[in-house]
Amino acid sequence: MNNSLARIRLILSHPSHPGNIGACARAMKTMGLFKLYLVNPKKFPDPEANARAAGADDVLQNAMIVNSLQEALEGVVFAAAVTARHRNLAPAPLLANAAAKELIEKSVHGEIALVFGNETSGLSNDEVQACQRTIHIPANPDYSSLNLGSAVQILCYEIYKEALFTEGKSASIIEAPFSPLAKFEEIEGLYTHLQCAMIKSGFLDPQEPKRLMAKLRRLFGRIQLEKDEINILRGVLDALEKQKLSQTRGFID
Amino acid sequence: MNNSLARIRLILSHPSHPGNIGACARAMKTMGLFKLYLVNPKKFPDPEANARAAGADDVLQNAMIVNSLQEALEGVVFAAAVTARHRNLAPAPLLANAAAKELIEKSVHGEIALVFGNETSGLSNDEVQACQRTIHIPANPDYSSLNLGSAVQILCYEIYKEALFTEGKSASIIEAPFSPLAKFEEIEGLYTHLQCAMIKSGFLDPQEPKRLMAKLRRLFGRIQLEKDEINILRGVLDALEKQKLSQTRGFID
Repeated sequence: MNNSLARIRLILSHPSHPGNIGACARAMKTMGLFKLYLVNPKKFPDPEANARAAGADDVLQNAMIVNSLQEALEGVVFAAAVTARHRNLAPAPLLANAAAKELIEKSVHGEIALVFGNETSGLSNDEVQACQRTIHIPANPDYSSLNLGSAVQILCYEIYKEALFTEGKSASIIEAPFSPLAKFEEIEGLYTHLQCAMIKSGFLDPQEPKRLMAKLRRLFGRIQLEKDEINILRGVLDALEKQKLSQTRGFID
Repeated sequence: MNNSLARIRLILSHPSHPGNIGACARAMKTMGLFKLYLVNPKKFPDPEANARAAGADDVLQNAMIVNSLQEALEGVVFAAAVTARHRNLAPAPLLANAAAKELIEKSVHGEIALVFGNETSGLSNDEVQACQRTIHIPANPDYSSLNLGSAVQILCYEIYKEALFTEGKSASIIEAPFSPLAKFEEIEGLYTHLQCAMIKSGFLDPQEPKRLMAKLRRLFGRIQLEKDEINILRGVLDALEKQKLSQTRGFID
């Protein structure tokens, strides 16, 4: 397990719906987080929680059930509260992605907590003030009502992404080419082939070329063609050219 | 409404659970997205969908129900498929944040689609190949089973964040295309034309197609073809096909 992720606990304060607890467990596990604390859950354990957790029931089984946020925060060096609205005197807010970066950085120093409130009433002012940070998820100002499981999913995702990035594994493009990339001379060979075929077929009039080759270069130049793909394209051209001969021969024989 | 967001449609192909459809509608609306397409939903409309949508039932009410992904993609200039696993010959994958950036950039040119598959079976290879991009959500390699609503929430969140970011920048570096981008149905028309020409010429044996069409889709899927370019390519094909007839006639006359 990633060291940073192993040091992050997720705390749900007074969750009402067991289905949401299950959804949170699933969201956590998909992003490599395993430590769940429940402060006075209304209904837990519950079959609905297990149903929504899908394969993440280990997270539910290991969940710590406590009586207060203070208890859940024991041993933590840094706590961040996820809130929908800004509050006076609350710790300074950060957007989710910046907050994830901060949490991963802080995790070098010890246990970290991410705190979510009740589905309807959110976190109390006292709860928010027990934390050193508030986190804000950017959302549609006309309808910012994120489901609890969705809010947890977004934060866990940002944290996981940041942990990967910090580990140095992250890159936005993850594909190796299917076959080696075509070399300059192979691509030029395709253009020459295309040009000949177009002239022979009458599509391209060498007296009045109308920038046709420039347009085709612009088109194929955008792809970063692979060797195999050049072979396919030239194969198609060959077949279309030879077809004429063989069918012609068929008529004459 | 943000212009980019208004041009992005979200397509759920064959969703099984109405609750997930509702959760997706809610996830969309929290992030400023409103256009939902449902391809053959198993159970819809359904009270469970409305319950999970919470205040987003307007998104459900306006959802378009269609019979095929092709129908849902009509009019779209760029489509991205969200997939959990890498597949051979699929369009090149991007991670969610990089993909969101790309989608917002492409939305300058027309309608954009984000495609999600069935909860259990995901998207078929044909469905993936109807798109120009695959999107991968980074997740715990030992348990990457994101709930459908959660996957939708993460993508919508990344898109919303990117739209906010782009709005904040002065619109400057977006390259103007040479001609309007080709629409889904125009690109499909090219593939059909190519396939017919290859079969007629004997290059493609319908009894043993060897994934040739998949390879060509992968090739042209990377270009973001423009309308004029489709016309040129089909013009070349036409000319190569007709050449045979006229020259044949020449020999016989």
